[in-house]
Amino acid sequence: MPSTQIPLKKVNKMTYEEFIRCFGNVVEHCSLCAAAVWRERPFHDVQHIASSFGDFIDRLPTSGKEGILRLHPDLAGRLAQSGQLTSESTREQRSAGLDKMSEEERQRMSVLNKRYKDKFGFPFVICARENKKDAILKGLEERLENSQLTEAITGANEVKKICRLRILDLVNSDSQSTQSSL
Amino acid sequence: MPSTQIPLKKVNKMTYEEFIRCFGNVVEHCSLCAAAVWRERPFHDVQHIASSFGDFIDRLPTSGKEGILRLHPDLAGRLAQSGQLTSESTREQRSAGLDKMSEEERQRMSVLNKRYKDKFGFPFVICARENKKDAILKGLEERLENSQLTEAITGANEVKKICRLRILDLVNSDSQSTQSSL
Repeated sequence: MPSTQIPLKKVNKMTYEEFIRCFGNVVEHCSLCAAAVWRERPFHDVQHIASSFGDFIDRLPTSGKEGILRLHPDLAGRLAQSGQLTSESTREQRSAGLDKMSEEERQRMSVLNKRYKDKFGFPFVICARENKKDAILKGLEERLENSQLTEAITGANEVKKICRLRILDLVNSDSQSTQSSL
Repeated sequence: MPSTQIPLKKVNKMTYEEFIRCFGNVVEHCSLCAAAVWRERPFHDVQHIASSFGDFIDRLPTSGKEGILRLHPDLAGRLAQSGQLTSESTREQRSAGLDKMSEEERQRMSVLNKRYKDKFGFPFVICARENKKDAILKGLEERLENSQLTEAITGANEVKKICRLRILDLVNSDSQSTQSSL
């Protein structure tokens, strides 16, 4: 979590350039979401910011939801092992214990991830902060049985959970908008 | 233009990671477009790649079209002056003569750009390779009169033109897909 959270009032005064810089990675590598959501200002509270991102993701065509998933790294994959994840992903994967897997667990994750990507054409995405490694491995196995459309939607819903937690990290949720009439 | 163009056959064999790396900036700073369009493979020809990007942009909600515009730099703006544009934008703005404006023209462009952003909440986007600086200044003045929705759509159509030309730069358009039955 960043050491200083931004007050809502300040968020509502941001230019779009500032907003994109600040919220550009709350959806991993997909600054279009922040660029689109800026138009929803002023935000009443931090949940309003999160729901605006969620609504934008929901309104994307299926190809767009799949695209968002393709911008995500593999869980406990090559990037994690070589330290090339974004700082947000590094923290999240660590919180699920994915940095402390046995060699056997890592192998199993790698095989399942590959099977998932081969079947669906996008990586398995799950909110790591709401799951531990055993639940993630179980989820991966179970979700492999779903259809492509179900997984695009399920994955996008996980992205929305990740996004919400990243926004809660960034913005001071105690602060209320001064524009309370809106 | 890159010195070596990619044959279509090679494009059709790309993993999504490779495709995003290669086509991630054909829509400026918006790799989601490439990430979404990858699912349309195999491409019959280079026009099919371009039309797939165009279709994706068309299917975005208005907020998404506006978002794409917000990821674009100002024409002949601060980033251009400090040499911080992407290589694609630098080449395009130069081809329109935007790097060779008089001080008066630069001032006028700056004032109009600001007025446009203040009115619409996104920057003025035009395909610089299909226009010279005088036409661009004229277009900027005229388009300032439009409604926000008209400008979101007009801007998105300009993005599609820029995107098409960038794809033609990247892919060898003489090459045909081997999968001619598709």
